Amino acid sequence: MRDTTSSVRGETIVETHAFRSPVLVRFAHCDPAGIVFFPRYMEMFNNLVEDWCREGLQISFAEMHLERGWGMSTVHLEVDFAAPSFLGEELSATLVVRSIGTSSVRLEIALRDAEGRDRVRGQMVLVMVEAQSKRARPLPDDLRARMSVFQSES
Amino acid sequence: MRDTTSSVRGETIVETHAFRSPVLVRFAHCDPAGIVFFPRYMEMFNNLVEDWCREGLQISFAEMHLERGWGMSTVHLEVDFAAPSFLGEELSATLVVRSIGTSSVRLEIALRDAEGRDRVRGQMVLVMVEAQSKRARPLPDDLRARMSVFQSES
Amino acid sequence: MRDTTSSVRGETIVETHAFRSPVLVRFAHCDPAGIVFFPRYMEMFNNLVEDWCREGLQISFAEMHLERGWGMSTVHLEVDFAAPSFLGEELSATLVVRSIGTSSVRLEIALRDAEGRDRVRGQMVLVMVEAQSKRARPLPDDLRARMSVFQSES
Amino acid sequence: MRDTTSSVRGETIVETHAFRSPVLVRFAHCDPAGIVFFPRYMEMFNNLVEDWCREGLQISFAEMHLERGWGMSTVHLEVDFAAPSFLGEELSATLVVRSIGTSSVRLEIALRDAEGRDRVRGQMVLVMVEAQSKRARPLPDDLRARMSVFQSES
Repeated sequence: MRDTTSSVRGETIVETHAFRSPVLVRFAHCDPAGIVFFPRYMEMFNNLVEDWCREGLQISFAEMHLERGWGMSTVHLEVDFAAPSFLGEELSATLVVRSIGTSSVRLEIALRDAEGRDRVRGQMVLVMVEAQSKRARPLPDDLRARMSVFQSES
Repeated sequence: MRDTTSSVRGETIVETHAFRSPVLVRFAHCDPAGIVFFPRYMEMFNNLVEDWCREGLQISFAEMHLERGWGMSTVHLEVDFAAPSFLGEELSATLVVRSIGTSSVRLEIALRDAEGRDRVRGQMVLVMVEAQSKRARPLPDDLRARMSVFQSES
Repeated sequence: MRDTTSSVRGETIVETHAFRSPVLVRFAHCDPAGIVFFPRYMEMFNNLVEDWCREGLQISFAEMHLERGWGMSTVHLEVDFAAPSFLGEELSATLVVRSIGTSSVRLEIALRDAEGRDRVRGQMVLVMVEAQSKRARPLPDDLRARMSVFQSES
Repeated sequence: MRDTTSSVRGETIVETHAFRSPVLVRFAHCDPAGIVFFPRYMEMFNNLVEDWCREGLQISFAEMHLERGWGMSTVHLEVDFAAPSFLGEELSATLVVRSIGTSSVRLEIALRDAEGRDRVRGQMVLVMVEAQSKRARPLPDDLRARMSVFQSES
């Protein structure tokens, strides 16, 4: 879902062109403390990128991996876990593009509660690679153009 | 396993007092590209912390969570994925303590290949919390003392 | 989603009162062979039961576990994996109740492809337990009544 | 680990030639009820099969999948969950071969507590497939011979 309305959420991020998706906190995500186990948040991040590619960039992971022989490798990750999330909560996931390089894209991802407060906020750097060699390859121009639609000044 | 020999691995980290553990790259860790799916590395990080607590600090997660009513929450994460890891590889995981605060500890974790080259390197900040309230609580003195054994100058 | 139309899918199951939910085969579900790793199907089963409880039975797992102190333990599982599922596929998950006991319920679950052919078909027996003691407790009458709406003759 | 001593564990299974492996119940395995989430047991089953192939049959999953282009697909699963397992427990996993077909092998797997009582007991039917086509292929004779070492009368 692309959000084209101008809005400010939190203090630091203008999400004019954010990709948004709801995330339900499931039993499978939660640990013995009753809150989301942090590696499951990383699966939520990956699922959000997967949905963004398919719905926002019009190239599914299946097409990318199986037809074109490309992959999107996560090469860097920075995450702040601001507050715990509990079983049954509905979070809102938001993705914006921070910068686009020759082969890479830097994303900012936030998971927020129903009041718009951060639960988790992170940055991911993804690099487009050849699936076989795992070597970086340039982002194709059409994909770069579609990514730029989700770009936002910080 | 505590390693008390003085050694330099890679270029930037002196691991005089590192906690070490082997990690087998399993089928369950790998994605359709045949390499470790990055959230599974985060499970490896958590498993390493779990083993460090049990074997290095003499307090198991079970004792911490179930008997004492504490938890160790991950509040910050920074990870660089230097090179992919493949099915069947045996990695070496290393944990050192970078700094110890009132309630928190900053860890540096590396996963390396058989030649000692980084596959994944990251920092985690953990905060000791009360399991019920999820609020930070001071690290007990004995635990702090045992953590300091694994502390290393960067 | 409750399906009240009379229909026959496959050869053996009349799903007059089935609970249905779509399932996207995600990157996180797939193994190095490019197909769904079978433990991930078991997470899909659990997610389906979770959605059925919340939407079909009007009692969320959060309410069940956190407010009422109950749990639904899986005590038996039988699954046939008829054909592999691939990255990006949209499956249809179906749940019907086979029988209801004092504390237990037997479910039949199927995951099917877009043409209605089985990918995975299984039976799960769940037992309602006290969360603390893990001992079986009778299904409350209102829950039993709502479960019976999804009951189907085999 | 192959156990060649004659022994009876539980009431129904003679495990003369069982493959055994210890399993630690980790934080990552446990759910908000503080016990192992059942799909994680299925990962333990898969890990056990993986270890059996590598250590017991002298063919690693990496060799099987990447070098020979084969896979071992789970086509049937039956599991009884006799009692819950808790964070920090050390279980003992046991695998015996029940029968060997042209392309398939039926395994019996048990996870037991420190007193030898069943926590989980299941049967898995695996079929050797061509990785590309996902079609069944005959088990090679040497692999069949090595499998038969772990065969046990029920």
